[in-house]
Amino acid sequence: MIISLALAKALLNEAEKQAMSMGIKEDIALVDEGGNLIAFHRMDNAKIAGIDIAINKAWTSVALQIPTENLVKAAQPGSPSFGINTTNQGRIVILGGGIPLIYQNKVIGGIGVSGATSAQDIEVANAAVQAFQNMTYTWNNK
Amino acid sequence: MIISLALAKALLNEAEKQAMSMGIKEDIALVDEGGNLIAFHRMDNAKIAGIDIAINKAWTSVALQIPTENLVKAAQPGSPSFGINTTNQGRIVILGGGIPLIYQNKVIGGIGVSGATSAQDIEVANAAVQAFQNMTYTWNNK
Amino acid sequence: MIISLALAKALLNEAEKQAMSMGIKEDIALVDEGGNLIAFHRMDNAKIAGIDIAINKAWTSVALQIPTENLVKAAQPGSPSFGINTTNQGRIVILGGGIPLIYQNKVIGGIGVSGATSAQDIEVANAAVQAFQNMTYTWNNK
Amino acid sequence: MIISLALAKALLNEAEKQAMSMGIKEDIALVDEGGNLIAFHRMDNAKIAGIDIAINKAWTSVALQIPTENLVKAAQPGSPSFGINTTNQGRIVILGGGIPLIYQNKVIGGIGVSGATSAQDIEVANAAVQAFQNMTYTWNNK
Repeated sequence: MIISLALAKALLNEAEKQAMSMGIKEDIALVDEGGNLIAFHRMDNAKIAGIDIAINKAWTSVALQIPTENLVKAAQPGSPSFGINTTNQGRIVILGGGIPLIYQNKVIGGIGVSGATSAQDIEVANAAVQAFQNMTYTWNNK
Repeated sequence: MIISLALAKALLNEAEKQAMSMGIKEDIALVDEGGNLIAFHRMDNAKIAGIDIAINKAWTSVALQIPTENLVKAAQPGSPSFGINTTNQGRIVILGGGIPLIYQNKVIGGIGVSGATSAQDIEVANAAVQAFQNMTYTWNNK
Repeated sequence: MIISLALAKALLNEAEKQAMSMGIKEDIALVDEGGNLIAFHRMDNAKIAGIDIAINKAWTSVALQIPTENLVKAAQPGSPSFGINTTNQGRIVILGGGIPLIYQNKVIGGIGVSGATSAQDIEVANAAVQAFQNMTYTWNNK
Repeated sequence: MIISLALAKALLNEAEKQAMSMGIKEDIALVDEGGNLIAFHRMDNAKIAGIDIAINKAWTSVALQIPTENLVKAAQPGSPSFGINTTNQGRIVILGGGIPLIYQNKVIGGIGVSGATSAQDIEVANAAVQAFQNMTYTWNNK
């Protein structure tokens, strides 16, 4: 399964609705299974630093096949992945808010959210992931 | 005037409709007056090289305050801007398809399109610019 | 269809056999549909500059969905794609020897060869592409 | 002694067999005494972040003439090599899994493995190093 632009827009829309309901402004990116950008939206007044961070959170979630949240502890000094964020020309982001999109046990893309606290970024990303899972559940059970 | 995400989406939508009517697939980016990305959409099966090119065409149009098409001749060997595309860490794109959005004589953003021939990219970008001008004309004459 | 490492090795092997039969030494890279490296082999005494060139020829063929040979004329001064090789952080290679692997009208990967003349690099890449087409023809006609 | 492509393939093969026996998927790179890539293989479904990491673990092991595992403690805050991973344009990797290949007290190349835990990456790299040592022992005792 390949993520279409139409699906990407629908998922960004879910994330934006979630952010609005929380009163926050986010940068939101969606990449394909190769880590290449499909769509990006910066909500009004969201941080410009978040452009790179959102895109690279999405990339990291695909490139490492894990939520970026998993790296928060793992990349601390003394922890097993300390230093991973200086590999890949700095594209690895060790902040929460990047989550892979998984379909039939395969990473087929990823979403990255940046702009608020990591906890909020994760919540916004999860809204899109939940919507994705609901859609794919429907497809699988038609 | 600041380009909202809602306006950016509307302009990308115009560009996508134009590309679809031409039977081509495009990468389309929209940046603000600081050259920072507001929105990006990659149409299904559009070239992944076009991600960087579209974003940087939009950036170039704002950063140099001209359509990137103007650079095509100017950046040829022997011409006044020869070499400009290796400045700014290679962000300057000297291919047509990046056009600034101008409001009351001020560049307030730019659109960049990549994926087809330069002539086609320009046509797609122009569809968004035309829509922008129609909207702003309406605002100014209310 | 996804290119497995086993398939990638078989295709590199075809390219290496071709290069050996021509008495030349090549750097040979194979990337997936996202442009990400699957396999790379540098033949004994092949040029080290060719490491980057082969990998990025393969990437370019996927990212632009064309053989890199097509860029040779197009990227000359005065031609429509002049300047394209300074986009994408210099990853676009405008020398022949990068060829996309196409299956059912979709680019599913690419091979890049560097180390000899462009004509020779293309011949070596084509040996792998031909082998790929023979394999996929067999699959489709089983 | 110079590592031939044939030897490099044999060593990658040992690493791949080891990874398969452990049920893991790895990115595996082998560089020469100049730190330049000879061969790279990404096992099916191995992480794409590991492409850069494996290549640069191999490079680091040659460039610093030590197993990258030795950097894990040394590059911690307060330790003597803290900060080393931001030198060399980020090519220094401070995660285990890069091991130099030593012949007659000289570093003649290095192997880098990425994709699983550092302990697993090291185990996979060691399988190749062990095979290398067995081969060179045989050569020296013929």
